[in-house]
Amino acid sequence: MEFTAKAIAEYLKGEIDGDAEVKVSDISRIEEGKTGTLSFLANPKYEKFLYTTQASIILVNKDLKLDKKVKSTLIRVDDAYQAFASLLDLYAQSLPQKKGIHKMAVVSETSKTGKDVYIGAFVYIGDKVVLGDNVRIYPGVYIGDNVIIKNNTVINSGVNIYHDCIIGADCVIHSGVIIGSDGFGFVPQKDNNYKKIPQLGNVIIEDNVEIGANSAIDRATMGSTIIRKGVKLDNLIQIAHNVEIGENTVIAAQTGIAGSTKIGKDCMIAAQVGIVGHLKIADNVKIGAQSGVTNNIDKPGSVVLGSPALNIYNKRRSIAIYRNLPELLSKINDLESEIKKLREKEK
Amino acid sequence: MEFTAKAIAEYLKGEIDGDAEVKVSDISRIEEGKTGTLSFLANPKYEKFLYTTQASIILVNKDLKLDKKVKSTLIRVDDAYQAFASLLDLYAQSLPQKKGIHKMAVVSETSKTGKDVYIGAFVYIGDKVVLGDNVRIYPGVYIGDNVIIKNNTVINSGVNIYHDCIIGADCVIHSGVIIGSDGFGFVPQKDNNYKKIPQLGNVIIEDNVEIGANSAIDRATMGSTIIRKGVKLDNLIQIAHNVEIGENTVIAAQTGIAGSTKIGKDCMIAAQVGIVGHLKIADNVKIGAQSGVTNNIDKPGSVVLGSPALNIYNKRRSIAIYRNLPELLSKINDLESEIKKLREKEK
Amino acid sequence: MEFTAKAIAEYLKGEIDGDAEVKVSDISRIEEGKTGTLSFLANPKYEKFLYTTQASIILVNKDLKLDKKVKSTLIRVDDAYQAFASLLDLYAQSLPQKKGIHKMAVVSETSKTGKDVYIGAFVYIGDKVVLGDNVRIYPGVYIGDNVIIKNNTVINSGVNIYHDCIIGADCVIHSGVIIGSDGFGFVPQKDNNYKKIPQLGNVIIEDNVEIGANSAIDRATMGSTIIRKGVKLDNLIQIAHNVEIGENTVIAAQTGIAGSTKIGKDCMIAAQVGIVGHLKIADNVKIGAQSGVTNNIDKPGSVVLGSPALNIYNKRRSIAIYRNLPELLSKINDLESEIKKLREKEK
Repeated sequence: MEFTAKAIAEYLKGEIDGDAEVKVSDISRIEEGKTGTLSFLANPKYEKFLYTTQASIILVNKDLKLDKKVKSTLIRVDDAYQAFASLLDLYAQSLPQKKGIHKMAVVSETSKTGKDVYIGAFVYIGDKVVLGDNVRIYPGVYIGDNVIIKNNTVINSGVNIYHDCIIGADCVIHSGVIIGSDGFGFVPQKDNNYKKIPQLGNVIIEDNVEIGANSAIDRATMGSTIIRKGVKLDNLIQIAHNVEIGENTVIAAQTGIAGSTKIGKDCMIAAQVGIVGHLKIADNVKIGAQSGVTNNIDKPGSVVLGSPALNIYNKRRSIAIYRNLPELLSKINDLESEIKKLREKEK
Repeated sequence: MEFTAKAIAEYLKGEIDGDAEVKVSDISRIEEGKTGTLSFLANPKYEKFLYTTQASIILVNKDLKLDKKVKSTLIRVDDAYQAFASLLDLYAQSLPQKKGIHKMAVVSETSKTGKDVYIGAFVYIGDKVVLGDNVRIYPGVYIGDNVIIKNNTVINSGVNIYHDCIIGADCVIHSGVIIGSDGFGFVPQKDNNYKKIPQLGNVIIEDNVEIGANSAIDRATMGSTIIRKGVKLDNLIQIAHNVEIGENTVIAAQTGIAGSTKIGKDCMIAAQVGIVGHLKIADNVKIGAQSGVTNNIDKPGSVVLGSPALNIYNKRRSIAIYRNLPELLSKINDLESEIKKLREKEK
Repeated sequence: MEFTAKAIAEYLKGEIDGDAEVKVSDISRIEEGKTGTLSFLANPKYEKFLYTTQASIILVNKDLKLDKKVKSTLIRVDDAYQAFASLLDLYAQSLPQKKGIHKMAVVSETSKTGKDVYIGAFVYIGDKVVLGDNVRIYPGVYIGDNVIIKNNTVINSGVNIYHDCIIGADCVIHSGVIIGSDGFGFVPQKDNNYKKIPQLGNVIIEDNVEIGANSAIDRATMGSTIIRKGVKLDNLIQIAHNVEIGENTVIAAQTGIAGSTKIGKDCMIAAQVGIVGHLKIADNVKIGAQSGVTNNIDKPGSVVLGSPALNIYNKRRSIAIYRNLPELLSKINDLESEIKKLREKEK
């Protein structure tokens, strides 16, 4: 699809500065801009590229002042980044969507599907599954018995959802995600064997959640592992049985959360963090990358870092000193010889 | 299914204290108990919930003394937790099992299948595969040529097992697990390229092993990567080529074990641990979460922690001092100024 | 297949020392050698096994001197390890290859396939996909619209490749790999919600790349996430959006690289490393296992270790002192009491 600067400016309610008839059919970063693409300038750090980019149209903030002449057509808007994001949305929504139920899908006769669903090839839908309107399920997905998936949710290819789990509306589940696998529950026996504890609960994922590729969320032993609305999980994350993650909490890649831990809302947890089991983490907590959290964090808004995780202020001082341990050691050795000298003089 | 307190007490050989005719159809945690559910009390910490829970039936230890009246029907048994676990088992076994070979599975004519197997839709079974009795293979599983899977083993949806691997009896393999992918073996060439070493071995998994979602176990270069009987692996674990894990060893999520390392039996390895290649870890060793093990652990029963991993006693002291590094630094600075003063007085 | 020592010696241009007619049908490690297998001796550490192994044929270096009589037939070559590797290659190439398009694959009519491709059962090939000659796609793979896969590349079972991604020639992609999932891009809103930024770029994988089981490579927001030619990635690795990895760089298992970071060529990155976003790592850098890299590494050939990562020389000194922190503490306490004594004497 091609759009003129005029059409885009009308949609964004912006002002055109340059050729209103120039056309674009793709987007680009301003530093990599090519003819026929639309780009944007929000960060002043990138302003220099305004004068060198080949992008045909550039969205800029209304108040931008030019140092010299610009070859591209500018569209002046209130907030160039928000305007660009809204165009990305519009573009994403304009992409053709797959529709219908593929003849090589297996859909149980006891399942119910809403309006305008897409069910791709090699999808298996178990007994008594309920799919809402506009649900899109890509090829090779497995949906166990009694699963519920609500309106507008997208399940990408190769996802596996075990029986009895519930997925909310407007979610995006990426390829390779496993939802509802057995929690890691075993009881040691006298002969050093372990006996499996049946995992009879489920996973509940609320609305507007996104889960990244190859993450795994275990079902509860009893009750539910719960991912609250608005949570965003990155790739390769491990969520153990009976964990609960509060609303709008964001977790970066390769982090793992052990069994029965409850995490508050609006938290930001960086990548490769480990949180041990049976803890409570307050709302609005920030946890630095590669941290190991071994105790409850009771104070909302805490910022912790390190393994074991400490308050960030103490931790940063410890890190700085740690880096300087060799210097510290030689200082101590100096002190030692000074004292030796002092004592010898005394004798 | 519904059960009366009377029927459950008979099965468990327990004594009823309350209404023998009350019925339950589900289970619950005592702190979340609802009418119509069965719960248990084993940990005295939870005793307070005995008086407030809505659970209809509660399993308790024979010798429990009540402080006040309890609304629920109690069933008194020797060991409430073991009794509850045996009911969970009974319940899990009572769930309907899938049977038969789905018409949209592809099963090579040269493969052999035992009695009462389940092979779901979109399962691919390669040439000369041998499946034991009661093997259950859920939809979307790939089983390469010459694979052997022994009696009663469950392969959940979306598992991939490369050619020539062997899976024992009574195993549970969770969704997304990869067994037998190539080990990471390359030889550097003069032009900075790497040449792949063909990985011609296999993976052998013995009986009674459980492997968690999205874990990956590489085949050996030559010979076998071996997971001994009774091993339990959590989710997202990496087992490299030619590793051997001893009987009944338990490993938590996101741990990785590098090539050719041999781990003893009855070990407990926590989450997010890394163990470098070509090591030997003795029996009965415990390794703390996020540890990095860089040397052999020769002494059975050792407990190590940290990266690099140290004996836990030394490590805990180092951690305590590390937390206090800022105080330690100011102490050293104080000492320094004291000495300065002493020297000046001398002059 | 069986081979005589004579046939192998002819192929390798080696000299036979022993029975030229002895036959082998498998390979073994020298320390585990059985009758009917071929082994090799390259590392002098293993020389003792030469006199005890049951292997029927052993490749040895031309100049090897024997201490006593050897039962096996020796084949003397210039470089026993290289000769063995070339036999492994020959053997791997001799294994029968799957051919043709399975009748239970779904291949879009608008896609193009080269000569001698293999497309297994339950493979989905989307619209306008282009597959080169000799491409082999194992069962259960998903290939989105507009994907390009070049000559001789092998896609193992259960791989998911999102739309518009490009895979080079001579690549090996292992089971469970996800290529082109959405980058983790969200803009915080005033009500603590996050708004998804559409991820409209792709992933480009150049020639001769190998990617290990269950790794995930996210598509770029705009432009491309790029894996340059000759890169080798191990299992369970996370590559975020807009990352670029330079030629012939090797990365071990469970490492994660955050968004927009550019890694140079010929780097060696060990396992469980984390690298934060928007960094530049120079060529030929080595990063130790479990490191956390938080700053640019500008100097080619740097070797760093630890979290946060430090130059290895400083880091090793810090680690050594860290291990000795308890001793250091008692030294400081000694100094303190010495000074106290000195001051008291003064009074």
